[in-house]
Amino acid sequence: MRATVIHAPHDIRVEEVPDPVVQRPTDVVVRVLRACICGSDLWAYKGESARKPGQRIGHEFLGVVEEAGSEVRAFAAGDLVVAPFVWSDGTCDYCAEGLMTSCPEGGFWGSVGSDGGQGEAVRVPFADATLVALPAAAASDERLLTALLSLSDVMGTGHHAAVGAGVRPGSTVAVVGDGAVGLCGVLAAKRLGADRIIAMGRHTSRTDIARTFGATDVVAARGEEAVAAVRELTGGRGAHSVIEAVGTEQSMSTALSIARDGGSIGYVGVPHGSAAGVDLHTMFGRNIALRGGVAPVRAYLPELLPDILNGTIDPSPVFDLTVSLDDVPTGYKAMDSRTALKVLIKP
Amino acid sequence: MRATVIHAPHDIRVEEVPDPVVQRPTDVVVRVLRACICGSDLWAYKGESARKPGQRIGHEFLGVVEEAGSEVRAFAAGDLVVAPFVWSDGTCDYCAEGLMTSCPEGGFWGSVGSDGGQGEAVRVPFADATLVALPAAAASDERLLTALLSLSDVMGTGHHAAVGAGVRPGSTVAVVGDGAVGLCGVLAAKRLGADRIIAMGRHTSRTDIARTFGATDVVAARGEEAVAAVRELTGGRGAHSVIEAVGTEQSMSTALSIARDGGSIGYVGVPHGSAAGVDLHTMFGRNIALRGGVAPVRAYLPELLPDILNGTIDPSPVFDLTVSLDDVPTGYKAMDSRTALKVLIKP
Repeated sequence: MRATVIHAPHDIRVEEVPDPVVQRPTDVVVRVLRACICGSDLWAYKGESARKPGQRIGHEFLGVVEEAGSEVRAFAAGDLVVAPFVWSDGTCDYCAEGLMTSCPEGGFWGSVGSDGGQGEAVRVPFADATLVALPAAAASDERLLTALLSLSDVMGTGHHAAVGAGVRPGSTVAVVGDGAVGLCGVLAAKRLGADRIIAMGRHTSRTDIARTFGATDVVAARGEEAVAAVRELTGGRGAHSVIEAVGTEQSMSTALSIARDGGSIGYVGVPHGSAAGVDLHTMFGRNIALRGGVAPVRAYLPELLPDILNGTIDPSPVFDLTVSLDDVPTGYKAMDSRTALKVLIKP
Repeated sequence: MRATVIHAPHDIRVEEVPDPVVQRPTDVVVRVLRACICGSDLWAYKGESARKPGQRIGHEFLGVVEEAGSEVRAFAAGDLVVAPFVWSDGTCDYCAEGLMTSCPEGGFWGSVGSDGGQGEAVRVPFADATLVALPAAAASDERLLTALLSLSDVMGTGHHAAVGAGVRPGSTVAVVGDGAVGLCGVLAAKRLGADRIIAMGRHTSRTDIARTFGATDVVAARGEEAVAAVRELTGGRGAHSVIEAVGTEQSMSTALSIARDGGSIGYVGVPHGSAAGVDLHTMFGRNIALRGGVAPVRAYLPELLPDILNGTIDPSPVFDLTVSLDDVPTGYKAMDSRTALKVLIKP
């Protein structure tokens, strides 16, 4: 089959690789219908996260089961399924607690020895625990299929950030980061009942989506100017709930500066940089909590999937560019140059 | 009156200072019956927290109202009262939310221009909001009076740490720090229903108190050895709830290393050192939350006071040395050299 391979920073190629096959009786092979490029793939693309030359890439996909191992109970060939960005065994204590990202048998698509999402097919370990069934009819609904793909990562990650930020009915929320995750954070906060949602971003194409997703205010500034603007919007005090969806020292520092005393920062941006803007002295004096991390999106799927199917939320607008598998390298360039927000791949 | 004054690191003196008087109609003057020395006073003593020469010191006290301003409603001369370590106005949004430590009109005893707790008397601003009444009979019960003094700081702070660490019935808790706050953290965790409490400390006099307070296990090691011991006690995974009651980079690093994936660190040790051991990459990958800060002990007083009065909890064993006001400098030396755990002052 053909799949995306990363050879070096800025060297992404689509190549012929071995066809995936069922190796263990709990595996399935999924033919990929939709995949996409994640903001976190860009860290590898830019060389800021290490990858071995020749490693696969891509961790978001949905598709159709092509072959199922003998012990797979929940799925059969022909089923439409979505995969969270990690696989997990479904039997350990962490899986039972809903923290599938800590499953000792789990792993990330695209890690050494596994298939990545940006290819024609993927071998899925622990299929019964990992995959979630989608209604067959969705396969013929372009818009819905795109929306459902967000469950692989960005929608669940935005939701994790909103949960970490303690969003409740009536909350005031500020969102740092206007990428797909930040926008899904807006949508998640709205879904959880936030009263006021302040989106921060300087690209009107993105903040327009934020408004569609439920943002009540937009702050089109950075640094101290942005902090001052959020403080002014919140009576000088800041937001009880802050979603941090970038992962740089600057973004974490901004998040802390716009948090209200006693509030929480829900952070899901993969941390880059040492200490990453965490000023413990300020957090201590102001009782600001920091909660988040790599999102256990599998745990959130049963809650979020129905709301996409019934139209309560529609994350599909975060995808603004569609490419074929052959054009994946072009998709990376578009996201790296920020001309595309999030790239949809139709293999 | 006589009060404790800090002139420079290691230069603590008891001196004649102006008698406190009611300055505003919402003030009272409290004659101090019991005060004490806090671990955080030692940061000033050692020169690691800046103080102006001549500043008062001490932020924990209980006593008898001597004079009340014309607008004070809740208290009159002769009432026995305990003070939390900050005063607060009781009318702002933060006070309403139970975050009195963020009250814009609030302040710490011993800050420039205010009386400290380690003296004969204290002018208390916003007395109605700040002070809490104690039963008059407690004044003649030495043990009870000592236990009640802990409500000024250490018991409420230990409770704040336990709340931040997410302690619930059945929790497994690990406590970093064998000072008075750490020990009160053990007591608070037990009170909140923890099933298993691992106290870390190498002084048997302290860990013996921890066992009395409810610790089920003691780890008498430091650094990597301590981490390995806690992991072994918790099936290799660590504790869901970790109380961090020291505030150094080393203690925060230990707290992170012994936390279970998906768990919480409740931190109340005043942070010292840059970044203070917060490894955001590890926290991110393992979804470990960090919650805590300066404890709003005033908010916890209505909950904790009845449990001390009815004997459910008795924090009094954390006080292991009693001095007169004149001997306060000796008390600092004893705590600095760790020959005393916590020093009680009888002015």
